[in-house]
Amino acid sequence: CYSIDVCLGYTLDTAHVVQEAVKHEKSVSTKSTPTDLVTEADQQVEELIISTLRDKFPSHRFIGEESSAAGEKCILTDNPSWIIDPIDGTCNFVHSFPMVAVSIGFAVKKELEFGVIYHCFDGTLYTARKGHGAFCNGVRIQVSKEKDVSKALILTEIGAKRDPATLNIFSGNIMKLLSAPTHGVRIIGSSTLALCLIATGAAEAYYQYGLHCWDIAAAAVIIREAGGIVIDTSGGPLDLMSRRVVAAGTHEMANYIVQQLQPISYERDDSDPGVQK
Amino acid sequence: CYSIDVCLGYTLDTAHVVQEAVKHEKSVSTKSTPTDLVTEADQQVEELIISTLRDKFPSHRFIGEESSAAGEKCILTDNPSWIIDPIDGTCNFVHSFPMVAVSIGFAVKKELEFGVIYHCFDGTLYTARKGHGAFCNGVRIQVSKEKDVSKALILTEIGAKRDPATLNIFSGNIMKLLSAPTHGVRIIGSSTLALCLIATGAAEAYYQYGLHCWDIAAAAVIIREAGGIVIDTSGGPLDLMSRRVVAAGTHEMANYIVQQLQPISYERDDSDPGVQK
Repeated sequence: CYSIDVCLGYTLDTAHVVQEAVKHEKSVSTKSTPTDLVTEADQQVEELIISTLRDKFPSHRFIGEESSAAGEKCILTDNPSWIIDPIDGTCNFVHSFPMVAVSIGFAVKKELEFGVIYHCFDGTLYTARKGHGAFCNGVRIQVSKEKDVSKALILTEIGAKRDPATLNIFSGNIMKLLSAPTHGVRIIGSSTLALCLIATGAAEAYYQYGLHCWDIAAAAVIIREAGGIVIDTSGGPLDLMSRRVVAAGTHEMANYIVQQLQPISYERDDSDPGVQK
Repeated sequence: CYSIDVCLGYTLDTAHVVQEAVKHEKSVSTKSTPTDLVTEADQQVEELIISTLRDKFPSHRFIGEESSAAGEKCILTDNPSWIIDPIDGTCNFVHSFPMVAVSIGFAVKKELEFGVIYHCFDGTLYTARKGHGAFCNGVRIQVSKEKDVSKALILTEIGAKRDPATLNIFSGNIMKLLSAPTHGVRIIGSSTLALCLIATGAAEAYYQYGLHCWDIAAAAVIIREAGGIVIDTSGGPLDLMSRRVVAAGTHEMANYIVQQLQPISYERDDSDPGVQK
């Protein structure tokens, strides 16, 4: 009664709404902090995705960035669940900086089953279904098999917290990795697209504190099906609600990153509903 | 006897060489530091561009990234001069990280006359000729007119120097701008493409220490013709050989950045030839 193909169809439909919205003036508000932006388009796209999917699958659960910001529970149950980021890279979207994606993941019995991520500017479509491989525009993709950190390109994102203590840890982590040495660090402003670049092998590792379950859900399936690793920043298994992740092409690379990082603490996605996160 | 159209034709021809090279295994060496990469493709593309242009314009001068690394003089004279980066974003190119460009600028009597930058992954072409506007794929572009730094997206790049003292200043500059607060900072790994994103208005400001004249030449024309500012990090006029730049959509934004930055010193592009920079 549900399939990746149905999901794909809806994702592409809604992605067109985002593509249109990019061309127009954006009405911007803020959420948890002055840099945690949201636009009318985020809310419209999420409503469109959820209302369409709910008509088709009335018994399913929906976890979405904007519903959650509006106070809905963000708890993963055993029920079939859609985990949706209507516009990942909202700050980029506001600036028409060309790194913006729609991300839809699907889980059953708390296991991620498939994921679809659509790059709204260049039209690249990343898809994966558990056990069936990962694809970029229909072509099979594979992570980088590099184990040597001195040859690694590493991706990260800044996160919404910008207080001096958080920025100090954020900066310390980047400087430690640049001094390793590594080839470099990139910050593109979209967690889901950065994670897709791990899946294609364009970068060796990604880490972040402060992202959300809707940033990781679809990308985790895509990276794992491309042969990569998605774990917690502690080195343990991924906790979708913990707001932290390390992704890499190899265990060696993932473990190296885990050992370097000083943690930044963010409130869990499944903490009390209604609380601004 | 020379025109932007001739330059455009050659740029597109050589860009195809880069696009083909992206698909194959890269032979990587290092230049000034272990993170200052060069590939056979950089050298081949530059030879191709220069030999083609030299046939057509035997009296012109050529300043190119790889010729300069090989010890050729990097001095701007009054002669018509082509300033060439065959592959900007070499580290990205090595990883197939999709931000790589060919950049060709042209100066007469030390004045920049036109510039062409070609994004080798998505095929976007940026062009500008002094007094005739700036274009992206033939469509006129314009910088962001935002003056309020708290609404700014800021771009920078890391540079080749990775010693602790340099990384400290690099990191301090980013943290100061993040705390301003601004909307965010992005690092995409290609100076020329980052500068093009200032020209399209996708970001409000760019600054960098450690880039070269071939990273700025074409982009400076494109940004100025898009209505933007390209100056020295001191706030004075751009010095093409000084290896530092601030670019922005508005004077207010450029001046704000200038006031925040702590300088990082790099040897000038026109210092003794043959010395590794």
